[in-house]
Amino acid sequence: MKIGMIGLGKMGMNLVSNLLEHKHEVVAFDMNPDSVSHAAGKGAVPANSLEQLVASLEPPRVIWAMVPAGGPLHSVVTTLTPLLEQGDIVIDGGNSHYKDSLALAEQLSEKGIHFFDVGTSGGVEGAEHGACFMIGGDETAFRHIEPLFRDLAVENGYLYAGKSGSGHFLKMVHNGIEYGMMQAIAEGFEVLDKSPFEFDFEQVARVWSNGSVIRSWLMELAQNAFSKDPKLESIRGVMHSSGEGKWTVETALDLQASAPVIAMSLFMRYRSLDSDAFHGKVVAALRNEFGGHAVESAK
Amino acid sequence: MKIGMIGLGKMGMNLVSNLLEHKHEVVAFDMNPDSVSHAAGKGAVPANSLEQLVASLEPPRVIWAMVPAGGPLHSVVTTLTPLLEQGDIVIDGGNSHYKDSLALAEQLSEKGIHFFDVGTSGGVEGAEHGACFMIGGDETAFRHIEPLFRDLAVENGYLYAGKSGSGHFLKMVHNGIEYGMMQAIAEGFEVLDKSPFEFDFEQVARVWSNGSVIRSWLMELAQNAFSKDPKLESIRGVMHSSGEGKWTVETALDLQASAPVIAMSLFMRYRSLDSDAFHGKVVAALRNEFGGHAVESAK
Amino acid sequence: MKIGMIGLGKMGMNLVSNLLEHKHEVVAFDMNPDSVSHAAGKGAVPANSLEQLVASLEPPRVIWAMVPAGGPLHSVVTTLTPLLEQGDIVIDGGNSHYKDSLALAEQLSEKGIHFFDVGTSGGVEGAEHGACFMIGGDETAFRHIEPLFRDLAVENGYLYAGKSGSGHFLKMVHNGIEYGMMQAIAEGFEVLDKSPFEFDFEQVARVWSNGSVIRSWLMELAQNAFSKDPKLESIRGVMHSSGEGKWTVETALDLQASAPVIAMSLFMRYRSLDSDAFHGKVVAALRNEFGGHAVESAK
Amino acid sequence: MKIGMIGLGKMGMNLVSNLLEHKHEVVAFDMNPDSVSHAAGKGAVPANSLEQLVASLEPPRVIWAMVPAGGPLHSVVTTLTPLLEQGDIVIDGGNSHYKDSLALAEQLSEKGIHFFDVGTSGGVEGAEHGACFMIGGDETAFRHIEPLFRDLAVENGYLYAGKSGSGHFLKMVHNGIEYGMMQAIAEGFEVLDKSPFEFDFEQVARVWSNGSVIRSWLMELAQNAFSKDPKLESIRGVMHSSGEGKWTVETALDLQASAPVIAMSLFMRYRSLDSDAFHGKVVAALRNEFGGHAVESAK
Repeated sequence: MKIGMIGLGKMGMNLVSNLLEHKHEVVAFDMNPDSVSHAAGKGAVPANSLEQLVASLEPPRVIWAMVPAGGPLHSVVTTLTPLLEQGDIVIDGGNSHYKDSLALAEQLSEKGIHFFDVGTSGGVEGAEHGACFMIGGDETAFRHIEPLFRDLAVENGYLYAGKSGSGHFLKMVHNGIEYGMMQAIAEGFEVLDKSPFEFDFEQVARVWSNGSVIRSWLMELAQNAFSKDPKLESIRGVMHSSGEGKWTVETALDLQASAPVIAMSLFMRYRSLDSDAFHGKVVAALRNEFGGHAVESAK
Repeated sequence: MKIGMIGLGKMGMNLVSNLLEHKHEVVAFDMNPDSVSHAAGKGAVPANSLEQLVASLEPPRVIWAMVPAGGPLHSVVTTLTPLLEQGDIVIDGGNSHYKDSLALAEQLSEKGIHFFDVGTSGGVEGAEHGACFMIGGDETAFRHIEPLFRDLAVENGYLYAGKSGSGHFLKMVHNGIEYGMMQAIAEGFEVLDKSPFEFDFEQVARVWSNGSVIRSWLMELAQNAFSKDPKLESIRGVMHSSGEGKWTVETALDLQASAPVIAMSLFMRYRSLDSDAFHGKVVAALRNEFGGHAVESAK
Repeated sequence: MKIGMIGLGKMGMNLVSNLLEHKHEVVAFDMNPDSVSHAAGKGAVPANSLEQLVASLEPPRVIWAMVPAGGPLHSVVTTLTPLLEQGDIVIDGGNSHYKDSLALAEQLSEKGIHFFDVGTSGGVEGAEHGACFMIGGDETAFRHIEPLFRDLAVENGYLYAGKSGSGHFLKMVHNGIEYGMMQAIAEGFEVLDKSPFEFDFEQVARVWSNGSVIRSWLMELAQNAFSKDPKLESIRGVMHSSGEGKWTVETALDLQASAPVIAMSLFMRYRSLDSDAFHGKVVAALRNEFGGHAVESAK
Repeated sequence: MKIGMIGLGKMGMNLVSNLLEHKHEVVAFDMNPDSVSHAAGKGAVPANSLEQLVASLEPPRVIWAMVPAGGPLHSVVTTLTPLLEQGDIVIDGGNSHYKDSLALAEQLSEKGIHFFDVGTSGGVEGAEHGACFMIGGDETAFRHIEPLFRDLAVENGYLYAGKSGSGHFLKMVHNGIEYGMMQAIAEGFEVLDKSPFEFDFEQVARVWSNGSVIRSWLMELAQNAFSKDPKLESIRGVMHSSGEGKWTVETALDLQASAPVIAMSLFMRYRSLDSDAFHGKVVAALRNEFGGHAVESAK
């Protein structure tokens, strides 16, 4: 199949490699010409603009956008829309909010263009060697692009999830689960770290990765991380986040669903951003007020 | 009434003042002779030893121990036991674990000595000007010492809670609730602190202390604290704890009672003790492994 | 002062009584004519429409809306706007989202009308006998209506919090704290309820309301509740919520502020809405899968 | 190697099969003679008593106890001790508390008997086809029994973790992580269940098991469970627990380690045991007291 790829960052570039590996033709565009050259070096047809990318494809065109959610994606779609025709297909493989995907799908459907919201999981390596895809959009049109997913995904690694929005909704919840799993694993190692025993964390992660109930890719990644830095002394425990965990909690709030573990995972991330938390000052001050308990002075 | 007071720290000394104020006779002992002199200066009869304290009282003796739980209390009771007679009364006004109180009560009952586990709340000022007491022990013997509590407590501020252990059990749970309330208040101010508005926290605590649903002594204390240091810039947000919150969570675990808010209040205190949490390093390392997300390096 | 009151529900009607008690003139309107008659019986001037209400007031008019947030409030303000003049004052005393208040303030400011977002706390009784008010809006215009708050509030019970939005922001956070405090108190009683002791909950709430660190209006209300139904056997533990707690959590998420206790209080409310939670089924099924642990069958 | 197996329940019997499969000689005992016969049918040497089991082995004997922690294990060890000699080896493969294991190891070391605390994971199937073992005890003695673990475990599936107690400590923390992972997965499906989309949960668990960041054995088990009952309608969401999660939280409390997610997972299990929670009644009653909010009546 011939496919246009917009956005050649870590994920997009690896998808290009994966597609070329599976003998698809790829027309590649990115704002950064170096990235376009790099893709061309791998065998993709370079495009210097969205116009050129569209012109290099035949209807019904299949265009995959792998760009940051929000502004960049919307601007790409806005530019694309007048260039496309009825029956063309736009795939958003990024981490967009499912409500934005719903809105884009509706907007494009007015011109007869199919929009697919595709959640992509598996990390950077997965993009190259086989990832996991959750796909929302029109079912008939999906059958047309299904061969792409069959090639890009690991075995059994893609799902047509349902109507528009369902792909990114699944990816959002996937990330919420990911937050909870990571925090659970991390708390376990924190207990080990504070224990009276002398554990070799790499070995612990290794044995837990083989045959145990908690075996998982994340545990294998923990083994990798500990193999490079046995006590993670070189890094700080600051936990950034990129939005999907927050969306999961917000969605749980809207749906009145209990999600204490996912929420707590997120709040511990936020807590880690403050070297000293204001709520801690308030509690310390209150203890001092009623019980005369000493406070620690700042600097 | 004549009463022996053992332990003349912040709480014990203020109870002595409160008792003397109410025309009780107090025989006072502490390991620190300066404290004994200080109590004598207020009008107490000084005692240089537990033996002398016991000798200065007439049966049935009433002895109030206001000493740290654990070792110190047990050592005091062990020394006292052979000096006391059937019908004498020992009051533990400290923050002992209710199971220790149960054990002490049983041990002393073998000699016919009454033991009361008394939870004391209200802070250092309450000890002097009127506190809150939760009392466990023999009901008949309680009637003998009830006048003490009528004088030491604020109006309606004491409760005969039931058999041995119930006083310290109530105090333990009281402190668990206290942890939750303090954390709730502190989180509220953290949200204000991070908000786009410029709130005057002293004024906020003041208005919330008058007429609102959340008016409470803790909110008044917050007002005091902010009046001295409007943004609490002089203190660090390290939240120490002295055991009762932990006991409440452990008891909830044993009773299979849901106590998420009390538990979370405690875990946030533990979190504040670490400048950099190991679980944070693990999560940061995992994010790096699968998504190539940058980690912050530890200098 | 002469003031128009729109909305004569539990809160609005009690504010009318409170205003009349303090010798203010009140023009009262509600969709329900019976409520208008009832207010008239107390001494208010009845209005049969918003037009009549506006016509009964002299510029600069002061109009207090005590109607549900969202649709009703917006519809009231939309109807009022063309009837009002520059310098008139509209007060929203309901539980509106602070962002809606910001938008309304901006919208009305285009016509020179002052809008105040006023968070009201203290419950239904507070509205009649003295409440707590958190007020956002133009400071100069505030001085004009300050006498109203001096009369309606308990002593020290109102605060000019700052620019538009700050009043409802404070009220939102107040309610978040309220959620946390209530859950903390409730967890304490749950531990007591499952304990091996036989506590008299009314007496416990009574003693904790007098002299303790956790004394608070909520604890006094707990005493009231237990006095009517010692074990609350007549009611189900279903905890509804009306939005402000959720907004507080959402705002904490937006501000990246840690609010685990407030969030957990809310999630326990949501949990209580389900007689059987789906997440419980999943965990039970997983335990069965790996360990052969028995599941309980759903009839 | 020749090994005695005590306890022929689900786990013990499957270990016997696994050992026999790997050409080890097994002497098998259980309180239930039928289980002994069943093991004999598989090729084990039956033993009718602990004495007979010990007599059937040659020094240094290797005896594996796969019996419930607490009473049963202690009674087995007490009976075994006088029958054993210096150099013999006792393995506790059950879910014992690591502090009990420490005590047993010390007690047996007085007679020169080696004790190993072995945490076993992988479920019932793992016991038969390859499990995961975390092993604490004397390192030299471990080399003698290592071949057993090489055969019983999956590849890379056993770890000599360190001195006595470390094996069961690791297993305890493993289960704590397991609680957190299961709750995270379960919350994800709860959000899906309450969402406006119509997801096929079996297919979702399938796609998440292949190539995604959250791929894990637990997700595969979720796929199994949903394949049998697509919405888990046949089971109730009551989540029992067998102790290790509670021990993890208690240990975290003792070590002052933050473990909010593991703790919350446990509290949600406790919450699920109550059809109506007392804390919910308290919150509902308080809302009624201050705001006149309706309560739902019981029955």
